[in-house]
Amino acid sequence: MLKNESSTARDRALDDPRPALPPIDVEEFRKVVRSRRSIRRFTDEEVPGRILDDCLELAMLAPNSSNLQPWEFYVVSTPAIKQRLAEACLGQNAARTAPVLIGIVARTNTWRANSQRNLDEWPEEKRPGIVEKYYSRIAPLHYNQGPLGLFGLAKKAAGLAVGLRRPVPRGPYSPCEMKVWAAKSTALAAENLMLAARAHGFDSCPMEGFDDHRVRKILGVPRDGIVIMVLALGRRAENGVYNRQYRFAPEDFIRRL
Amino acid sequence: MLKNESSTARDRALDDPRPALPPIDVEEFRKVVRSRRSIRRFTDEEVPGRILDDCLELAMLAPNSSNLQPWEFYVVSTPAIKQRLAEACLGQNAARTAPVLIGIVARTNTWRANSQRNLDEWPEEKRPGIVEKYYSRIAPLHYNQGPLGLFGLAKKAAGLAVGLRRPVPRGPYSPCEMKVWAAKSTALAAENLMLAARAHGFDSCPMEGFDDHRVRKILGVPRDGIVIMVLALGRRAENGVYNRQYRFAPEDFIRRL
Repeated sequence: MLKNESSTARDRALDDPRPALPPIDVEEFRKVVRSRRSIRRFTDEEVPGRILDDCLELAMLAPNSSNLQPWEFYVVSTPAIKQRLAEACLGQNAARTAPVLIGIVARTNTWRANSQRNLDEWPEEKRPGIVEKYYSRIAPLHYNQGPLGLFGLAKKAAGLAVGLRRPVPRGPYSPCEMKVWAAKSTALAAENLMLAARAHGFDSCPMEGFDDHRVRKILGVPRDGIVIMVLALGRRAENGVYNRQYRFAPEDFIRRL
Repeated sequence: MLKNESSTARDRALDDPRPALPPIDVEEFRKVVRSRRSIRRFTDEEVPGRILDDCLELAMLAPNSSNLQPWEFYVVSTPAIKQRLAEACLGQNAARTAPVLIGIVARTNTWRANSQRNLDEWPEEKRPGIVEKYYSRIAPLHYNQGPLGLFGLAKKAAGLAVGLRRPVPRGPYSPCEMKVWAAKSTALAAENLMLAARAHGFDSCPMEGFDDHRVRKILGVPRDGIVIMVLALGRRAENGVYNRQYRFAPEDFIRRL
């Protein structure tokens, strides 16, 4: 459940910096992953608020780039808005039948504010010098692309020059690379959200087939936001799975070095 | 464990198209997510091959765009190669100490071959007309950006025109949007992989701070591949966690409509 919402990150941090690792039944985890399918039809059953909140909390515990948390979740359950959103999702069954739709959005312009916030909300008594330096000096250089992406280009040139002699961190070097950067961390959270729903006995359908212009307008997504998916969430209907799950041969996707 | 590697997707599909949902202990899942941290130092302990394979199999069960599986996993455990890769990861502790490093790569050019493969390996006796149409006619239009991305631009213009009257699917409209598209599905798999390792009692560190040029060369990543992260994998060392976990206040990331 979401903790006291007015607390700061420091309040919410666990007391023990290195809590003991709990024993985990791996088979329970396998069941979550293996029983997750993209569900195309849901029943009328609502998703209880406490379960939805738990799923969102687990989503936001995903690893993310430098703890800059470039994600946003637009949780739509008001029937009239949900109906408009389902239409913008081209009226597909998953969108029409789900009791909740969540627009999952990656932000490319929140890194600056969130760098500062990492300084303000650092969860330890003492803020190490490297942390101070990272969020106050390195991150602002690293993620800033400048007007027309010109600063990114300059960084790329510098990286190419210095990189001739020794390994250097590269990118993000362009507005496009910032989009990939933000979408990546946000997708990690989206996967947690889908698995959490499954662990709670509910199901989801991540949708990319939607009218991006209309979805942005309905949700009020800021200009720098990328709607990486609209997630349908609910109770799996009996006819909610359209076909057997299948994946191509693993050896075509795994290289061993 | 990875199934018989010479089998086809159809062989590997479950017999029952709609298997009964297993009861799941949600607390076991919460433990997986909550105990996962980005680990900066690992012990010398190897990750057993069967556990690594199980993690990879669970990774590849992540949802992904139209089942086009745009992901690849470069599993590096040969000491000499691993050492070079750790140097390309700027010598950071997580990379130096981990017994296994995995380059997780998103491919933007495998969608065409994998569309055909979805037709060839469709897991049901009868291939529905809509599936036939999707992989043979819609996907090749939808993901193709054409030389210099010109076809993507034309699609964007058409979408703008038709979209004035009714909701239309939009994008990917550019090589950049294809990168976001591929990185997104691949990140969903990466999150499964990290959680699976945790469920098995192992840990991970997703790294973005690496020399992309050198990493691509060491791994032999094709031109269209994007290294979305290098994942360090191993047994958490006692000093593997540097600070308490913290997230900003959830209400700043959740909009309710």
